[in-house]
Amino acid sequence: MCQEPVVRMAELEIDPAKLEAYRALLTEEIEASLAREHGVLSLSAVSLRNNPNQIRILEVYADQDAYEAHLRTPHFLNYKRETAGMVTSLTLIDVDPIVMRAKP
Amino acid sequence: MCQEPVVRMAELEIDPAKLEAYRALLTEEIEASLAREHGVLSLSAVSLRNNPNQIRILEVYADQDAYEAHLRTPHFLNYKRETAGMVTSLTLIDVDPIVMRAKP
Repeated sequence: MCQEPVVRMAELEIDPAKLEAYRALLTEEIEASLAREHGVLSLSAVSLRNNPNQIRILEVYADQDAYEAHLRTPHFLNYKRETAGMVTSLTLIDVDPIVMRAKP
Repeated sequence: MCQEPVVRMAELEIDPAKLEAYRALLTEEIEASLAREHGVLSLSAVSLRNNPNQIRILEVYADQDAYEAHLRTPHFLNYKRETAGMVTSLTLIDVDPIVMRAKP
């Protein structure tokens, strides 16, 4: 069993006409994930200032099991279904943490 | 006065021969920043799994003053000086938070 944290970056491009709706669905999904899943440690979504339809998400899960469980939750599946027609490009990047620190 | 959080992403490429030394200096700088600066809210550094000399850092400061104060700290200036010959590319990207959540 692998108990290492799983960290990923997602790079998304959103249809500009659907950006407001996408941002609302993403916010709802992230808030539900943190509230309902012990294994979701942090989710940080930002938009590029010079190109706001470009979104970056840094995702931290407690371990591989937590990540796989997240993919099966109703709130994640709802987000994927509702945003399917809004996301024009999605790249998932596996990353390894070097150091991640936050104020308590 | 602007009291909005300041969020930035840095994309760095490190000389592979100096990667281990760079990672140690970055870790030291991030730990000092969180320990000594009230206005540094989080610093998350990761490497790309398929290209570990590519580093991504997500930086969150309480406000513009906190960000500017960070740039003048001895630990940041030491990091910049010590790593100057290690960083082969540096891109700073201004971003706007959409939603950032973490377990307490």
